[in-house]
Amino acid sequence: MSTTLLALYRRPEGGPAALETFLQRYRSEHLALIRTVPGLRALRVGRVAQSFGESDLFLVARLIFDDRAALDAALASEPMRAAGRNLREIAPGLVTTLVVEPDHALSSGAEEGLA
Amino acid sequence: MSTTLLALYRRPEGGPAALETFLQRYRSEHLALIRTVPGLRALRVGRVAQSFGESDLFLVARLIFDDRAALDAALASEPMRAAGRNLREIAPGLVTTLVVEPDHALSSGAEEGLA
Repeated sequence: MSTTLLALYRRPEGGPAALETFLQRYRSEHLALIRTVPGLRALRVGRVAQSFGESDLFLVARLIFDDRAALDAALASEPMRAAGRNLREIAPGLVTTLVVEPDHALSSGAEEGLA
Repeated sequence: MSTTLLALYRRPEGGPAALETFLQRYRSEHLALIRTVPGLRALRVGRVAQSFGESDLFLVARLIFDDRAALDAALASEPMRAAGRNLREIAPGLVTTLVVEPDHALSSGAEEGLA
């Protein structure tokens, strides 16, 4: 079992300069805080290379925890609260965050070695 | 390296009965086709247990391939085309699909054993 906090980022307005500013702060401020969150097992950040159907999503982050209890403890932690405040500053209104529980009955294959 | 096709599913209208009908067809029709797609290394389906911020997403599927070339070959395959047609039938207008490339410089931790 594992529980994932999935963050979906919409592209900031303001063109390439705004995007570069966001990415710089995301890397140096936001992810620096996220990496200190207790119980975080893995962090997977991906860039959206293509969309099928209308979408302004451009970045996807998965924060992976052992289980829901570990995620809840992380959400209540000071580093995560600081990361949330930071996100409201660097990407206001641009992020949708979901708690995702794996459905093992519908899943298949092994992910090892693919990350 | 790996490349992921990330499918984000919005909740169908029609309440619990419509949801149950979708899930039944998703499992028996759509995923049955997806599992025959050439080059698919792993399939990870997750249920949205909670949302922060407004969202009607309720299901997330990750189709994981070795690389972009393998994904492109899969997208051109007959099983994937059939899966796309099936999706337009069982979840019309409810799915956003993204090609996601990992950003290893921004990622950390190991995912092995967590799936």
